[in-house]
Amino acid sequence: MTLIEKTAAAKKAGLLTATLSEAVRNKALISMAASLRENSDLILEENTKDLDAAEKNNLGSALLKRLALSLSKLEEMAAGLESLATLRDPLGIRTIHRELDDGLLLQRLSVPIGLIGVIFESRPDALVQIAGLCVKSGNALILKGGSEASHSNRILHEVLYAAICTADEGFENSILLVETRAEIGELLALDQYIDLMIPRGSNQLVKYIMDNTQIPVMGHADGICHMYVDKVFDKAKSIKLIRDGKTQYAAVCNAIETLLVNRESTSILPELQETLPGVELRGCTETQKLITCEPARDEDWDTEYNELILSIKIVESLEEAIEHINTHGSHHTDVILTESKASAELFMSHVDSASVMWNASSRFADGFRYGFGAEVGISTGKIHARGPVGLEGLTIYKYRLVGDGHLVADYAEGRAMFTHKDL
Amino acid sequence: MTLIEKTAAAKKAGLLTATLSEAVRNKALISMAASLRENSDLILEENTKDLDAAEKNNLGSALLKRLALSLSKLEEMAAGLESLATLRDPLGIRTIHRELDDGLLLQRLSVPIGLIGVIFESRPDALVQIAGLCVKSGNALILKGGSEASHSNRILHEVLYAAICTADEGFENSILLVETRAEIGELLALDQYIDLMIPRGSNQLVKYIMDNTQIPVMGHADGICHMYVDKVFDKAKSIKLIRDGKTQYAAVCNAIETLLVNRESTSILPELQETLPGVELRGCTETQKLITCEPARDEDWDTEYNELILSIKIVESLEEAIEHINTHGSHHTDVILTESKASAELFMSHVDSASVMWNASSRFADGFRYGFGAEVGISTGKIHARGPVGLEGLTIYKYRLVGDGHLVADYAEGRAMFTHKDL
Repeated sequence: MTLIEKTAAAKKAGLLTATLSEAVRNKALISMAASLRENSDLILEENTKDLDAAEKNNLGSALLKRLALSLSKLEEMAAGLESLATLRDPLGIRTIHRELDDGLLLQRLSVPIGLIGVIFESRPDALVQIAGLCVKSGNALILKGGSEASHSNRILHEVLYAAICTADEGFENSILLVETRAEIGELLALDQYIDLMIPRGSNQLVKYIMDNTQIPVMGHADGICHMYVDKVFDKAKSIKLIRDGKTQYAAVCNAIETLLVNRESTSILPELQETLPGVELRGCTETQKLITCEPARDEDWDTEYNELILSIKIVESLEEAIEHINTHGSHHTDVILTESKASAELFMSHVDSASVMWNASSRFADGFRYGFGAEVGISTGKIHARGPVGLEGLTIYKYRLVGDGHLVADYAEGRAMFTHKDL
Repeated sequence: MTLIEKTAAAKKAGLLTATLSEAVRNKALISMAASLRENSDLILEENTKDLDAAEKNNLGSALLKRLALSLSKLEEMAAGLESLATLRDPLGIRTIHRELDDGLLLQRLSVPIGLIGVIFESRPDALVQIAGLCVKSGNALILKGGSEASHSNRILHEVLYAAICTADEGFENSILLVETRAEIGELLALDQYIDLMIPRGSNQLVKYIMDNTQIPVMGHADGICHMYVDKVFDKAKSIKLIRDGKTQYAAVCNAIETLLVNRESTSILPELQETLPGVELRGCTETQKLITCEPARDEDWDTEYNELILSIKIVESLEEAIEHINTHGSHHTDVILTESKASAELFMSHVDSASVMWNASSRFADGFRYGFGAEVGISTGKIHARGPVGLEGLTIYKYRLVGDGHLVADYAEGRAMFTHKDL
């Protein structure tokens, strides 16, 4: 089969998985978990081939770490799939139930989106997590993994696909793995079949996909997050939050890149510097007068470092901080550190970001921490799903109207009137 | 100002309109309505200029009809704006309220999308309706009207924009009118400012916009809707519904184009033909044996006629009908005519369309008839909004997290545990 034929088959499979019962979908998740455990030797063997090749090709220790599987990682994935099975069914949730007229009933119910395309780099555990989310939400899935993980991806796909097809034949063709690099371009052109594309990987990968497809893309390129120290602030609390936001895990999108400090609150800076050893500080001209730091250049305000670097800017007012964030941020997650409720309210209503926070760490912006059980990714788009995206983000709704011979002509010509009563 | 500068200003204006209170937004709607009434002479005078030019250019009676304003049409628009003011506020609706841990509270609240671009043809009343929806939902708006309505659009924009700015200065720059044809291409390239594009016009216009922008587009190109006559059906009821679906208003997207008839139910055809005088019937080979009709060609199953033409196909089963609809339809609105609950259930769960109906006319798929008060359009996309789109489709949500110094490190290192309690 060509890629187009395979994708068409997956699209068709998605029409069927959409109608599988909650029990069948949960059974498939349990079967996936069991199969990961049963085939752990085989999976680790294949993973070793990828690791050996990566070492030979000098792919770097960070990549090796993301690539490596282990018995405990497999157990974690299996447990994750089992926990997905216990989550509330995201399908069939009724968000409108309305009588339009006597005997004419409208419902709006959640249904799967259809065929989801996921392009991911290095981490083979992403394959397992995403496959689980799609099975739970009744979506079909096309996966395109990185070539550096090809053996691992192939065996994981084989094991999981066999497990769901054993659980129910309705899953046939519903998870497809695409392997060669050349196929990315072809995949991005298949907008007649793929309903949503989710990239998981570097900013470059995400940007490339966003710029090269007509398929809607869910995700984020940059994660330029801010903390702002307001006039009235608690110094000890604020310093701990800045340290957590910058250093708890600097390589991720919800870590902070820029600290904005109100002119009246610069007393925080010397102590902050002491508690951030190993963090390179890049300050605006004013900051440079107050602490020893590197000079920040214009591009620093628009840069996601993803490492232990923090840019610092002194602002005249809360309004200037909001303006800076809305201009230079990536609408991901921004935090105000203040003891003033009025300032917090103004900040949270005026900052145009998916998550806005008051006296909490930006690192909380995450599907698991928000209580969604699992996460597809974090979206900085404003259409459909924004911020941490869980199962709900893999559904859309469908209107069902039931009548008994109701004609529009009767309403258009005044012989009948709508009641529009919510039930 | 250049178009880019103007668009940037509108984007910024949207950050402010997002924070205006419900009272201010409703006051602006009332002010718009009053201003339409006060300036009716001026508006009709400008409209006459467009009508005169259209006649001179022989633009056809259908276009003239769409273009023409009148005192009663203006009154209708004014009343529509006043009724928008009485609708429930679509902003600030809380869809998640969750305690993540003691003192760490998460909310998900509806907020405006930001800057909406609308490209519309001929009907100047669309400008008024869309401006009203955007004011109510706190969005900023860029409007690009057709050149055939340039005088009408200019005066309507002037009058409405003055009215909202008088109501509150927070609306400054929030509704922008773009006039020359050359600016469409420029507008479609402004994806850094425009959050959502809504085309209102011909299939050609919608398709052109979808193919030429990275901005998310909400709408539909085709509206190929079906009715399927199942095995067990009520003949009188079904004939009335088919007539309503085809003839009540044939030029619109939710009229039916194709009738599918179960092999066991072909007895409906002769009587149906009698009740559809003036409708050209195009039948499959089997249909041609049963009634006098034109032969349907392959492309007929993929064609939106938008006029009094109906293609008819005889199918072996409910499953074949579903397969035909999912393959040839446009995922807009499809109807089953049956007295069997099991057939209806199977049809409604397996047909992948925004609206699926049982014994009701496809023409009900409409924002007003569904009780949304007003409609932005009908979306056949599956991301964000699907089917008739009302005010809710012009909003997205924002997460607000409030803590008291809560650090992620405490949770990552096991010193604290999430409670994840919905409030």
